[in-house]
Amino acid sequence: MEQTIRVELSTTKKEKPKTDQLEFGRTFTDHMFVMEYSDPLGWHNAEILPYQPLMVDPSSMIFHYGQSVFEGLKAYLTPDGDAQLFRPERNLQRLNRSNDRLCIPPIDEKFALKAIKQLVALEKDWIPSTEGTSLYIRPFIISTEPYLGVAPSRHYKFIVILSPVGAYYKEGINPVKIAVENQYVRAVVGGTGEAKTGGNYASSLKAQEVSAKEGYAQVLWLDGVEKKYIEEVGSMNVFFKINGEVVTPALNGSILEGVTRNSVIQLLKHWNIPVVERKISIDELHQAYKDGLLEEAFGAGTAAVISPIGQLTWNLEHLVINNGNTGELSKNIYDTLTNIQYGKEKDPFNWIEKVNEPVRVKR
Amino acid sequence: MEQTIRVELSTTKKEKPKTDQLEFGRTFTDHMFVMEYSDPLGWHNAEILPYQPLMVDPSSMIFHYGQSVFEGLKAYLTPDGDAQLFRPERNLQRLNRSNDRLCIPPIDEKFALKAIKQLVALEKDWIPSTEGTSLYIRPFIISTEPYLGVAPSRHYKFIVILSPVGAYYKEGINPVKIAVENQYVRAVVGGTGEAKTGGNYASSLKAQEVSAKEGYAQVLWLDGVEKKYIEEVGSMNVFFKINGEVVTPALNGSILEGVTRNSVIQLLKHWNIPVVERKISIDELHQAYKDGLLEEAFGAGTAAVISPIGQLTWNLEHLVINNGNTGELSKNIYDTLTNIQYGKEKDPFNWIEKVNEPVRVKR
Ligand SMILES: Cc1ncc(COP(=O)(O)O)c(C=O)c1O
Ligand SMILES: Cc1ncc(COP(=O)(O)O)c(C=O)c1O
Repeated sequence: MEQTIRVELSTTKKEKPKTDQLEFGRTFTDHMFVMEYSDPLGWHNAEILPYQPLMVDPSSMIFHYGQSVFEGLKAYLTPDGDAQLFRPERNLQRLNRSNDRLCIPPIDEKFALKAIKQLVALEKDWIPSTEGTSLYIRPFIISTEPYLGVAPSRHYKFIVILSPVGAYYKEGINPVKIAVENQYVRAVVGGTGEAKTGGNYASSLKAQEVSAKEGYAQVLWLDGVEKKYIEEVGSMNVFFKINGEVVTPALNGSILEGVTRNSVIQLLKHWNIPVVERKISIDELHQAYKDGLLEEAFGAGTAAVISPIGQLTWNLEHLVINNGNTGELSKNIYDTLTNIQYGKEKDPFNWIEKVNEPVRVKR
Repeated sequence: MEQTIRVELSTTKKEKPKTDQLEFGRTFTDHMFVMEYSDPLGWHNAEILPYQPLMVDPSSMIFHYGQSVFEGLKAYLTPDGDAQLFRPERNLQRLNRSNDRLCIPPIDEKFALKAIKQLVALEKDWIPSTEGTSLYIRPFIISTEPYLGVAPSRHYKFIVILSPVGAYYKEGINPVKIAVENQYVRAVVGGTGEAKTGGNYASSLKAQEVSAKEGYAQVLWLDGVEKKYIEEVGSMNVFFKINGEVVTPALNGSILEGVTRNSVIQLLKHWNIPVVERKISIDELHQAYKDGLLEEAFGAGTAAVISPIGQLTWNLEHLVINNGNTGELSKNIYDTLTNIQYGKEKDPFNWIEKVNEPVRVKR
């Protein structure tokens, strides 16, 4: 039984920001999608509404016990003026994996994708068209039961909001300085690191604040158990090219499985470039550096796509990678992924989902 | 420069629940306290307002990145009809420690205590008077900047709401069954376990859900690194009486420092009962049990005060403690703490803060 989506159009339209003045995540479009959950109704009352504040009781569980999940993906405008999404079904699958970890009832992935496509189609004028810009899509679920008890909520809201975002790199893809984090921990096996839930990000703020003061763009997270194995970089997955082979930390239970990560791996395989998912320690990386074998390093995530690491600082030692420049492989991956996302290059992987076509079922 | 608190009284009064029908955390009083933070104003606009829903933008950081902290304490009615608090300055100190970990600007503890006392005094009629009932006080801070970026928020709200709560034990203090948690982890050193922040509770739901299905009241959390050392029980600190000596896990960076925990330790010292804070492994506990030396076990926290553990299940083995009955020491601690809280017994520790007296400065 497919739900219908009630649509209430906004009577006023906001002014759209100039595309050269776009920031990340500060402007929102005219409409939003909202769906509610309650026992025993399940998910119901799907609506596209004018973008508006939520009325939330101060005792709502989201304000106290952090039961929430979210996703992040983008809509891109092709040279033909089509709106398209990049592997959205992966974000919705991950949302449901996050739901499971956080004891939130699963959503119907197909219906959620339909809702996202309908919302994006309605807001198509909001997708900026200049190089590197896009419409960021933020689906999220919050626990709204008014109850101060540590237990799964019995009420939720699933909401989708949209934000036009500028090019991540204003002057072309650009390497950053990263500090290896020795004190704070993002996640640990048995915790929520695999899930996209607020607490992981709240917990990461302190390390970022400290490292930002020291001039670093992000931190490289080590595992919470031995503080030895590399996990992620900032809010991105991380890759290293060592002696011709690309290495990324294996999914171990505390690493978020990125859509970009998976796409990078597939692309490398397609190119016949050796790529492995395995444990990699900071000591091994350091040794590879000393041996002159650490050729490239980069973060991978939806926001930046590829973020080259020009310098890695560990225990006061600065590892300068590829002379602080963007590596050739990093650049090729970036170009190919963004070309596919923007419809400028063929998509041999069936990654693209056109907004104006009915939802396809892919896994 | 002391802020003033603007007061707007509610024009209607809610009906108060019958004291024998009180649940925990479902009913809220007529008023709430709200104070805002923004750069560069700092904390400002302190108000007591009619209890009401918050209007929150869907892009507000609290819904996405979990930057929030909270506290929990109670107001008790004495036989003389006075309202009093139990060591509230400790909750506010802990709130500021949580703030620091979560990159939230500190609050003025003295002012916050003044605000809490003023709110409780205004709602004094809401403090239920029957045995074991109290008015639960929930101060919390949420990040409200409308911005989808992983960075500390530049806007916050500090809110205090009040909820009349029933007796935790309807038929006297009562032992529970606890399962040792081997899979999920509450917190890890370097993470946020020391702080009272939503993410810790969101992350704990899954283990509780699984163990509840198997008939357990709560789980016993082991450390996230070795899954070996005992940390907490549910949302309480934990104590064991082994061969005449009371042992509680030492504060190691991933354990919340409970106000009740500290009070139990002080009380035991006052009674000349040996008490130590140290690492204690589940193996050591198991050995003590086998040797017949595990005399009592209990959780300690504001909600239940003392929660005796009658059975501990570890790897399918059931450790029955004190024949599943409440231990004598557990009962004595419970009685003494609650008698002090309700003003039925002298307070040799200077723990009580009367609501109608000006704020005293104690540390
Ligand atoms: C912690 C974390 N790791 C990795 C990623 C990369 O995931 P994706 O490529 O799906 O954007 C993200 C961001 O989305 C993230 O928040
Ligand atoms: C995780 C956790 N541990 C311990 C406690 C006990 O702390 P307190 O005695 O201050 O209530 C609480 C509850 O407040 C808690 O949430």
